[in-house]
Amino acid sequence: MKARKLAIVGATGAVGQEMLKVLEKRNFPYDELVLLASARSAGKKITFRGTEHTIQELTEDSFHGIDLALFSAGGSITKKFAPVAVSAGTVVVDNSSAYRLDPDVPLIVPEINPQDAKSHKGILANPNCSTIIMLMAVYPIYKLYGIRRLVVSTYQAASGAGAAAMEELEEQARAMLAGNQPPTESFPFPLAFNVFSHNSALYPENGFNQEEVKMVKESHKILGNSNLRISPTCIRVGTFRAHAESIHVELEKEGDLDEIRNALADFPGVQLKEDMEKNHFPMPLEVSGQDDVYVGRIRWDLDDPEHKNLQLFCVGDQLLKGAALNAVQIAEIL
Amino acid sequence: MKARKLAIVGATGAVGQEMLKVLEKRNFPYDELVLLASARSAGKKITFRGTEHTIQELTEDSFHGIDLALFSAGGSITKKFAPVAVSAGTVVVDNSSAYRLDPDVPLIVPEINPQDAKSHKGILANPNCSTIIMLMAVYPIYKLYGIRRLVVSTYQAASGAGAAAMEELEEQARAMLAGNQPPTESFPFPLAFNVFSHNSALYPENGFNQEEVKMVKESHKILGNSNLRISPTCIRVGTFRAHAESIHVELEKEGDLDEIRNALADFPGVQLKEDMEKNHFPMPLEVSGQDDVYVGRIRWDLDDPEHKNLQLFCVGDQLLKGAALNAVQIAEIL
Repeated sequence: MKARKLAIVGATGAVGQEMLKVLEKRNFPYDELVLLASARSAGKKITFRGTEHTIQELTEDSFHGIDLALFSAGGSITKKFAPVAVSAGTVVVDNSSAYRLDPDVPLIVPEINPQDAKSHKGILANPNCSTIIMLMAVYPIYKLYGIRRLVVSTYQAASGAGAAAMEELEEQARAMLAGNQPPTESFPFPLAFNVFSHNSALYPENGFNQEEVKMVKESHKILGNSNLRISPTCIRVGTFRAHAESIHVELEKEGDLDEIRNALADFPGVQLKEDMEKNHFPMPLEVSGQDDVYVGRIRWDLDDPEHKNLQLFCVGDQLLKGAALNAVQIAEIL
Repeated sequence: MKARKLAIVGATGAVGQEMLKVLEKRNFPYDELVLLASARSAGKKITFRGTEHTIQELTEDSFHGIDLALFSAGGSITKKFAPVAVSAGTVVVDNSSAYRLDPDVPLIVPEINPQDAKSHKGILANPNCSTIIMLMAVYPIYKLYGIRRLVVSTYQAASGAGAAAMEELEEQARAMLAGNQPPTESFPFPLAFNVFSHNSALYPENGFNQEEVKMVKESHKILGNSNLRISPTCIRVGTFRAHAESIHVELEKEGDLDEIRNALADFPGVQLKEDMEKNHFPMPLEVSGQDDVYVGRIRWDLDDPEHKNLQLFCVGDQLLKGAALNAVQIAEIL
């Protein structure tokens, strides 16, 4: 699909800004670009590919003639405007969680389940950032041997909470280094020099937070396998824009580390990073700004002669493969 | 045992300094205190409990008349001087890893295996910080139901690498906020606004680092149970002095969450911290300077109707329960 007229909804946000960079870098084809945002941002100018664009206010009339819209807005805005866009004939690729589990909406990681995109009814959903990064790291292994269970603990960056949260992390660090009280507006607690349980609401009936439940339900949908056991713990750490994940994998059948390393190295969008001598493995600072998900520390459990219990550590840029890049890739396969 | 003459070996280090504070806070009984350190620190004055003490150089003659020595030095210094101390009739409580797995040396967490202290032959060992914090959080559960397996991912503070590393984290943050290159002397990579695989050497034969293998072998020794499966991943994060751990627990038999919470709340040295409404669980910033290990986010796996698969998150001050406090507690039970 050549999107002759392309819209970005939420163009001024952290993900929206990355979407523009990804479109430019990948030379995404379009004839006209419309940048939409809230009334607060309307009128601002953004120069993109040498052309000045004026941010327009998102309204119910915004989608006339738009072929493709990349949405990166909050859930309630999305719920209000995505159906309006679809009615206007626009195909929506949505980065919010609003439609991810809707059975009529394909949930796509282009390297994993591109075939599901065909059945869309106007909306396609971009998965949660932690889900995408985890699945990119384990899917090559899943294809080889099957996976019975994943136990995953995340090290999530500030960017998942938006551009203001990234600024807040910096302001918090400055304040604390100066001996002052850190600001806590985007986050409930100081994130600088701290870690805390992910700041999404908890389900009182099971004690999991929304981010963790997303990782489970979205993975099941993307893989088409709700038997895969997933035990996630989502934790924020004081990094800016790349999520790390420590993943324990129980295979369905005996595996081989060379075969696993080869499968990961060959998988599009994945990079192996394993320098055991220099203790150099994937790190958020190095993966920030990178398209690929980096995987390392691949090893069998110490007490696993059957070679069915594997550990690994992966890092992906939350704003790129975790959001903007994956959304543009979805648009590319349409 | 009343330690009439008490020595601190490594008195100027991060742990040594905390040992002095713990001795004062707990009103540890002694008649005379000798502070020992390397030649570099000899001659420095430290005022403690209103008395000025001069740091003395650690030599082979340092232990005449010393009843009890708390060692907090590197492995090679410890290997050289602990036997000298024992020959002089001194009982050594050692914070290094030098003797932890020696079958003649009890490895003690006083709340867990105080009975093992009786069989010492002059040296008692203080476990690794991550090991102590993990075992404090899971031992009350282990006692109730038995544990088959632990999968643990750590969020480890700079303090584990010493006082210079804590300063380096601060200097790194300042440099990066100013747009400058961060110093990396204590750590191989920037820790500020980053996370990386623990900076202990890796065993090429299995891909685990020393810190991870300590967690496995020391836990087996402390619990007297080498059948317990432990899958650790040790990661450094940009916090100053409290380690966090995300732990997945497979029980031997069905458990009950109320019973588990009660057991944790009743266990000496453990605090429950679970405010689901405010999303407020144990955090390094709040646990820094606290004696107890804080536990929260206790929940069954989402797909675990049998109630045998539990997750939790715990935080403990690396310098206190992870090191100095536990060492002084060992001295107290002697």
